[in-house]
Formats: sequence, structure tokens, C-alpha cells
Amino acid sequence: MDLFDKLKVEEGALGQHSHLPKDYFMFPKLEGDIAPRMKFNGKEVLTWSLNNYLGLANHPEVRRVDAEAAERWGLAYPMGARMMSGNSVHHIDLEEKLADFIDKEAVMLLNYGYQGVLSIIDAIVDRKDVIVYDAESHACIIDGVRLHMGKRFVFPHNNIENLEKQLQRAKRITDETGGGILVITEGVFGMSGNMGNLKDIIALKDKYQFRLFVDDAHGFGTMGKTGAGTGEEQGVQDGIDLYFSTFAKSMASIGAFVGGNPSIIQYLRYTLRSQIFAKSLPMPLVIGALKRLELLRTKPELKDNLWKVVNALQSGLKKHGFDIGTTKSPVTPVLFKGGLGEGANMAMDLRENYNIFCSMVIYPVVPKDVIMLRLIPTAVHTLEDVEETINAFAAVKDKLDNGVYRREEIIAITK
Amino acid sequence: MDLFDKLKVEEGALGQHSHLPKDYFMFPKLEGDIAPRMKFNGKEVLTWSLNNYLGLANHPEVRRVDAEAAERWGLAYPMGARMMSGNSVHHIDLEEKLADFIDKEAVMLLNYGYQGVLSIIDAIVDRKDVIVYDAESHACIIDGVRLHMGKRFVFPHNNIENLEKQLQRAKRITDETGGGILVITEGVFGMSGNMGNLKDIIALKDKYQFRLFVDDAHGFGTMGKTGAGTGEEQGVQDGIDLYFSTFAKSMASIGAFVGGNPSIIQYLRYTLRSQIFAKSLPMPLVIGALKRLELLRTKPELKDNLWKVVNALQSGLKKHGFDIGTTKSPVTPVLFKGGLGEGANMAMDLRENYNIFCSMVIYPVVPKDVIMLRLIPTAVHTLEDVEETINAFAAVKDKLDNGVYRREEIIAITK
Repeated sequence: MDLFDKLKVEEGALGQHSHLPKDYFMFPKLEGDIAPRMKFNGKEVLTWSLNNYLGLANHPEVRRVDAEAAERWGLAYPMGARMMSGNSVHHIDLEEKLADFIDKEAVMLLNYGYQGVLSIIDAIVDRKDVIVYDAESHACIIDGVRLHMGKRFVFPHNNIENLEKQLQRAKRITDETGGGILVITEGVFGMSGNMGNLKDIIALKDKYQFRLFVDDAHGFGTMGKTGAGTGEEQGVQDGIDLYFSTFAKSMASIGAFVGGNPSIIQYLRYTLRSQIFAKSLPMPLVIGALKRLELLRTKPELKDNLWKVVNALQSGLKKHGFDIGTTKSPVTPVLFKGGLGEGANMAMDLRENYNIFCSMVIYPVVPKDVIMLRLIPTAVHTLEDVEETINAFAAVKDKLDNGVYRREEIIAITK
Repeated sequence: MDLFDKLKVEEGALGQHSHLPKDYFMFPKLEGDIAPRMKFNGKEVLTWSLNNYLGLANHPEVRRVDAEAAERWGLAYPMGARMMSGNSVHHIDLEEKLADFIDKEAVMLLNYGYQGVLSIIDAIVDRKDVIVYDAESHACIIDGVRLHMGKRFVFPHNNIENLEKQLQRAKRITDETGGGILVITEGVFGMSGNMGNLKDIIALKDKYQFRLFVDDAHGFGTMGKTGAGTGEEQGVQDGIDLYFSTFAKSMASIGAFVGGNPSIIQYLRYTLRSQIFAKSLPMPLVIGALKRLELLRTKPELKDNLWKVVNALQSGLKKHGFDIGTTKSPVTPVLFKGGLGEGANMAMDLRENYNIFCSMVIYPVVPKDVIMLRLIPTAVHTLEDVEETINAFAAVKDKLDNGVYRREEIIAITK
């Protein structure tokens, strides 16, 4: 049959919702400078959807350096893959400063987080090796695992007892093949806000020989005394063999990095297919990352502000009886019982009548009868923003509980 | 065993050369504005290593718009994935202008070419489908094919007779599974400079039902009457079902796009994992791409200059007896008989004593007894640059033929 004939957008996990109002839930446009107050569909909304944890996206020093670097270098330089023609002293400088900050001996910059993670996993295992990974791992990890030709075992999210069972299974296999074991988890899980249980995972290293890869996209900059991430938060940075973070969250940019001991990082430099066969990170993004890292290190008040807002939001929501799950990080899911229609109508009511913009997370990320509205507090939100939001949430929860939102249909936009 | 213990950089295809002088052949730093003359190790070299085909990287209008866009938007905006919170009118505008230019009904922007290609292949096939692909396909295609759970058949580079055999095999399978067939090739192959034989491939569509994906990274902007790529060049753009190009070559930026009919593009918007689960292309790169596209469309003299240089270089090399393979594009490989040591010594002699910087392509891309020095002419090279380069190549070829370069050792850098 024709390959394309069967590709029906309406039948996909996300595409089934493509009938929802265009550019409203999916592909919305948030306009204006990145800040708590932005424009959506022409009016100002209080925004809780951007992983701009430290408020660096629009920090005046960041904006100045981004502009100066683009003026100085243009957006093309350097051209080619890092290995062939895309290296610079600034790329190396950023690697050294990141290594120092995360307390690893070596760091390799990556041109993009998604393909970086995928290629790291791909590069370090072969068919003799076994991967053991957390069930709620990000798509880039899953895609890396999908490239693996050997066995892979999944453990239920943060379930250490089950992880140990999977390690026993893995060990039986690697005893036979002569391979090694790679365990993969995240520092902070972006949907639930849970921390990966790194401490307990690392404690198992005594009993089972494995290497640990941690994707700390949401923990870098937000967790730990200095903001060096979830390894620092749990006092186990040394036990993380490969520490990864993107620049797309706290660093408010694109690009990523991975840190570890010098020999594994040297190995990665010569083997990561997405880095050897694709263009290097453009210079303004490197210079911009250096400035962001400097602010992250020298302005602890950014993280302090973030946590002041996080604590006010999370404790306020709990005090008002909201279910925010088990988050231990700034990521703040608010969970309701209800179907997709009710959730969409509630999110729309929030946007249209309470001027609160947040993202709705849907099946299959949450069960079909759960509505998740996810709030991402940042250092530039205020306590007044928090209060306004909790009040709005209390109002729409009342409506939900009283059956105001229809289950099946999406209401018309009321503007 | 310990997973990392077996990862020896010295044993990898590229890592085995990690003993070569540091940052010389691998991870060299080319400094200064992107141009034919740049600094390498502190001195000016004539550079033939950057895919800046149209010279846009340092075009004054590009530099101005890159700087203005970064000043106006910063490098953080928009944040989040395109689907969640990273959309803008400019992203949509760029898609529409690209679609118009490449003569496809719809285009989807991609945050990065490598992961874009990988996810496109991943999204459109399932285990019932069969992929048939050219043996010299780029790493991002290979990695996408590696994600495929069904059958895949490879045909020797541009071998249409063999392709037909593979299509017959594929058809036998899809007749049974009810799946479809995806054929993948490139517009211009980046190593040999060959064009994919699109016309003959598309002619087979009458006999075998398949869809064709073409990665035209090196053809976009350089091939075809208007620069719309290899499909235009061969008069078969309509036969390409998914037309892909990166912005990393002629467009001198990062990011990428894919074009096709509206329903397949709509399907891709809701299914490409690397796009749904990773950050949108930052605004200055979008604004910068709009400017680059405008120049590419309105300044045919850029492509004319490119081809003037290409023709002078390729005909000059041939006249001097050099083997430049079978290139039909600006990519200009120069092939010599010899081993890695001789090649490295020759490339080093070119850099140190003739001030010519070009990349050496090594095994496994070329056979072990072949040295490939690859030249990438651009619109901003001059005919004097060409003459200087051919003279230098004639001189080092003489030395190679007279056994001046040692086969095993790398000579000391003579500066």
C-alpha cells in the first residue's frame, strides 16, 4: 500500500487532538519578551509554561551579551562540525568552566541536547551491554535506548527494589556476554517534578558494577546548594559517571553538555555521531552560555528567588487542597480528576477569563482520567503572581467539581 | 566488566588518529570572519573547508540582520518546544516562504537537521514497512534507519539496477505485511559530490509503489536554476515526496526544514519526537534564515559566482591531471593513491608551506590506500584563489609521487 496513506494525523497520540482550536493548545504563540506577563491571542496573560527557571532569558546582562556576541560573530560562525572546522577557544573555555562548576574533570559541549543524549547512549554500549532505565525517562533517552542492539530492562519510575531486580537480570546477561551495565535516569523529571532517586541508585554500585548516566535538564541551575544540580542536591555528584544537561531550561538557550572523567569524555569526542556529523554550536550561543553560567554562579539570589516563588506556589496550592503529586523540584503539576474535554475547557477558561496561561499535559503522559496542568515557576514571578494564580485555580476547580465544564466538547473561545 | 573499561578512544574509527597533533587535523580552530582567508595556528590560510557555498555566512546583510535579530529578541526566545510554547508568526512565515521556494505545498521547520531527519524516518515507518536506502547516505539517515523495526535494504551508491532488485525484495515483503516502501537518498552526496540519481529513482515509481525522501543538504542553494536544489536541477521536484535540507550549508546557520504535501507535513508536526520533545529554533536563527532565503532568491549572482569558481577549480584540477572522481556539484574531492601517513604529511605541508587549508577525508570514508583532500569552493573565493590552490596541489603531488612524504610518521610541524 501507499506508505503515506496510513499516516493519519487524527490517529496519533497527539494528532488526535489536532482538531482543537488551531494554535491554541498546540502551537500557541506567546509574544513579547520572555517574562511572567506575555501576550497570547492579543491579550496579556500570566505565563507558567516556560522553563526559564532563573529568569535568565530576559536578564539585561544576558540580552546585552547575546546581542553583542551576534554583532561580533554573526550566527554562522563557526561552520562545520566541531571536529572538522567548528572548534574555537570559546567552546573550550565554556567546557572548562562547566566542568569546574559541576565538579567533573571534563566536559564536552553538544550542539543540541536531544541528539546529544541519543548519541551518548549509542556510543557507549554495544550488543553485549545491558541498559537499565527509568520508565519515565525523556523521549531523547528512549530514542537512544531504541538504538541499542543488546538487552534493555526498564524499572518502574524511581522503584529501587525493582531496579535491583533488573540489575540482577542484567548481571546474569553480562556475566555471560562479558559486557557492562549502563543505568539511566534523570535528575529531575520534567512532568512529575520528582527527583531521580540518585542516592539509592548509586548505593547499588557496591553490589552491581554499572555506570550511571543522569539527564539533569531540569535540575541544572535549580537544584543543589550552588545550583550544580541534583547530584549536588543529594550529595552524590561523584557517583554520576555521565552528567548531562541541556541549555534549554535554566540556561535559557539551546545546546547542551555532558561531563565525566577525562577518558570517557575524550572517547565521546571521537565517537558521538550527532556531533561528528553535524554543525558545531554557533559562537553567540557559546558566548551567551558563558554569561549565563557566570550569572548562575555569581548571583545566588536568582535561585533564591526561584525557590521563594516555588515554595509559595506549592505550599499555597497544598493549603488550598490541590493535589500537586510528589514534586521535589520547581516543576509543579496540579492534578485533577477528569477527562480531556473537561481539562481543555478548564485550561481555556483559565486563559480566557482568568488570564492564566499554563500547559495541559494529556494522555499518555498521565492516565486518561487525569487532568494535569503543569506550572513552571521562575525567579521572575512574584508572590502576587502566585496569589492570583492560586485564586484562579480555586475558582476553576470549583467549576470543575460542580460539573460546569463539559466532558466531550471544547467550548468556543469567549473573546 | 566495567562498561567504560572497554571504551578505548585509540580503537575507534576516528579515535585511532587522536594521537595526531592536537587541534591540528581534528578540532582545528579557524579564526576570523568566515571567508576564504582565515587564521589557523596564528597565520593566514586560504580555506577550502567550509560549506559556506553562497558566501552568506559573512554577507553584510546577513551579519546586520543576525545582529539586529539577536538585539531585538535575545537568543532565548521562544522557549519550549514549538508545539507547547515555542511557536511564532516568524516561524510560520519562514515555513511558507520555504514552501513557495522549493515548490512544495507545505514545509515544517526543524530545530536541528540531524535529529530532524532521524525523527522523520522514525515517524513515517512501522515494522510492516520497508526502507530502501543508498549505501552512502549521511549518518543522520543511517541513524534514522537504525530506529526502524522492520526490514531495510541498502543499494550500492546510485546503482539503479540494484535499487530495482531491492524494490522487488521490498515489494514481496510489503505485499505480505500490507506495509509501504520508503526510498531514501541524497540530492548531493557531501563526500563524492555526486548527485543522487533522482530522475531514474523516480522513474521506478510507475512500477513500484514507494515514497521518496531526499536529503538535499548540499544541493539546496547550489543546484537547480533558482537554487531550489537537486530536484529542480533534474526536473523532478514533484517526484520527491519529502524534501529535506539543513540550514548548515548554503544558509550558513543551524536548523533545517522538510517539505511535502500538506497532509504528510501536518502528520509530521504531531509526531516528530525530536521536535515535540525539544526546544524550538530560536528567533534570531529564524529571522536570519528569512534574510538568507531572501538573498538566495534575489541574488542569483551568488550562485553564479559559486559556479564560476567551481568550474575553474574543477576544470583546472582536471587539466593538471588530478583525479576529482565523479562530482557533479560544488563538492570537489581530490583523490591520491597513498596511505594515511602520506596524506597527513601532504595536508600538513599544504597548511604549513603553501598556506592552503583543506580537510583530509580518511578511511573508512575512502579506502585505506586512498587519500582524499576535499575542497569546498564558495561564491566568495576568487579565480586567483583557484590558481594558487592548483599550483600548490601540483607541487605537493610532485612530492607525493617522488616519495617525499613518509608513509608511517607524521612530520613535525615546521613553523
